[in-house]
Parts: sequence; structure tokens; C-alpha cells
Amino acid sequence: MARWEPGARDRLVLAAVDLFTEQGYDETTVAQIAERAGVTKSTFFRYFPDKRELLVAGQETLSTLLAEGIAAAPADASPLEAVAAGLARASDEMGPMNRDIGPRLRAAVAASAELQGRDALKSVGLAVAMTDALVARGVRAATAHLAAEMGLLAFKQGYSRWVEGPRDDDAGLAPHALAALEDLRAATASLG
Amino acid sequence: MARWEPGARDRLVLAAVDLFTEQGYDETTVAQIAERAGVTKSTFFRYFPDKRELLVAGQETLSTLLAEGIAAAPADASPLEAVAAGLARASDEMGPMNRDIGPRLRAAVAASAELQGRDALKSVGLAVAMTDALVARGVRAATAHLAAEMGLLAFKQGYSRWVEGPRDDDAGLAPHALAALEDLRAATASLG
Repeated sequence: MARWEPGARDRLVLAAVDLFTEQGYDETTVAQIAERAGVTKSTFFRYFPDKRELLVAGQETLSTLLAEGIAAAPADASPLEAVAAGLARASDEMGPMNRDIGPRLRAAVAASAELQGRDALKSVGLAVAMTDALVARGVRAATAHLAAEMGLLAFKQGYSRWVEGPRDDDAGLAPHALAALEDLRAATASLG
Repeated sequence: MARWEPGARDRLVLAAVDLFTEQGYDETTVAQIAERAGVTKSTFFRYFPDKRELLVAGQETLSTLLAEGIAAAPADASPLEAVAAGLARASDEMGPMNRDIGPRLRAAVAASAELQGRDALKSVGLAVAMTDALVARGVRAATAHLAAEMGLLAFKQGYSRWVEGPRDDDAGLAPHALAALEDLRAATASLG
């Protein structure tokens, strides 16, 4: 397998996450991020308006992919089948960069109360995006909320298993996320 | 009905939430909160170590109540019946103060990115507390996660309906939270 070579945008994200971990989010400047990534400040600003957006950009992409996948599911798909389509759509866009960044991002978040809050808000944003996409398909609000929360749990659990799993697993994120969703679906039978 | 008279602790919380909304969390000092509440700074410090803890204290109480209710449910209670017991236990401690603070707290959170992150983290904390309490009862992890997320959704939806409902409704938060949980339970049948 060819070694993965990140482009300037990915290098900026990786550099930022490492610096946030090492010295804190507040103490990290755009100039430091650019230097660590081996690019100029002008290059940073070609990709992101500021360091905050660098973190938010990934979330908006992910919300869009989940919603697109749900919207594009067949008309007769059940709510959970539509969520599975959203997970598959988002997972297909997750490459080596997203896998490599997982442990580093986790360390950065663990080290910063501000990033913990931002990370929690990101989850809220993903659940809202999926709920709205399901409601737009005509799914009742309570069912849409529940299916979206299951999708979010499955995405997080699947991502953890993918990141922690063996590197020779080339199957990508999708099988992990879909297996976690199936596990949650099966769990609905034992809620009582 | 006798008019509700908040004590010093509740007055401090209400004053803080109003000041956070008016001028921002960062700009608000302990001295200002104490003055608005009509108490001395020493009184503030008798209840809270700092302004951050003032916001966090309520969450820890709520987590404890939810977990206690789940732990105290009958041994043969199903996972969702245990969650319902947790919601009932926590709801019983919610009085006029908690109802009055709802709209103000929402305004304060809407006005501050830091408080939005903190609020989202609070939800994560409540879900973790319920998940752990269910796992301690022997509930399988996937079922515990799912039941805890349903409990969290039900608590939030029930709280919204209680806060927005007519003031002559003396039944408290519990019926609203339990109705929302039942609605989510019914929704599991239409997930597909």
C-alpha cells in the first residue's frame, strides 16, 4: 500500500491538533500552526478564516454528508435504514487522515475544557442534522429523534473501533458504524 | 398558592444566570452576582467555590438523582422502567426554582459559546451517569447506552414542556418527562 501523503489542508489540521494538545488551544496561534505544517500564514488563510473554524469545518462537512445520505435513501427505507445510508455516506468520505487524527484529537480534547465543550456541541449538531433530515422524509418527531441519537451513538462507537482496530483492516469506517447501529437496533428488543 | 420565596443559594443562581445573559459569562464577577442577589461575597463563597461551580453544581445533583433512582428500581424492572424511576426521582426534586430558571438559562446559554459547550457537556455527563447506573444493574452495554439516551431525550423534552406549560399545572415535571419517555418507547416500534 502506498504511504498516505497528506495535502496542505490536512497537514494544517494535524499540526493544529498536535499543538492544541501540547500547549493548549488558547496558547496556539495561526502562525505556529502554519509553521508546524510547513506552509505560510497566507496558505492557512486560504483554507480557514481562523483556528476555531479549522475545528468546526470538519463538523459541518460531516453533518452535510449524514443528511445527504439520509435524504438519498430509497423512499421506502425505514428510519433506521435511512440512518444507515447516512452513516455509509459519511463513512465513505473518511480516509487515512480521519483515522490517524482520532487518537490525537482525543488527547487534545481531553486536555482542554474548551475543546470538550466544542466536542460535545459537535455531537449535538450531528444529531440535529440527522433528525432534520429524517423529519424531512416524513418521519414522526419522536422516531426521528430516537433514530438520530442511535445514528450518533453508532457513528461514535464505530469510529472508536475503527481507530483502535488493526491497521491492516482496509474495510474503512462503514462496516464498524453499521455493525454498531445493528447492535443498537437489536438492543431495542430488550428495553422493556 | 403561597408565593415562592427563593433562599440565598437560589437567589445567587438566578442572579448569575441573569448577569451571564445581560453581559456575558466572562464579564460577570462573583462580586456582581452577590450584589444582584442581595448577599455578601462571603455568602457566595459559603455556597460555591467560584462562578463556574455555580453552574456545574446543579448538574452533579441531577446526575446523582438520576443514578439513585435507577439503582433503587425493583430488581425485576426492565431497563426503561429503571430509567423511568430515575426520571421520577430527579423530577421530584425539581421545584418552582428549576421551572423559573428554564427560560432565563436558555437565554444565557444562547448568548454564550462557552455556556453552549458547557450545556452540551452537561448532557454528556447525564447520559454517562444513567448508562453507568444501568450497567451496574447488569444491563448489556448497547441496551444501557440506548436506554440512557432515551432517558436524556425524555428529560429534556419533558422539561421544555413543563417550563413552557401553563403555570396552574401543579403536577410537576415528572408526568411530562415520563410521557416523553413513553412516546420514545412507542417510537422504537417504528424504527424499522
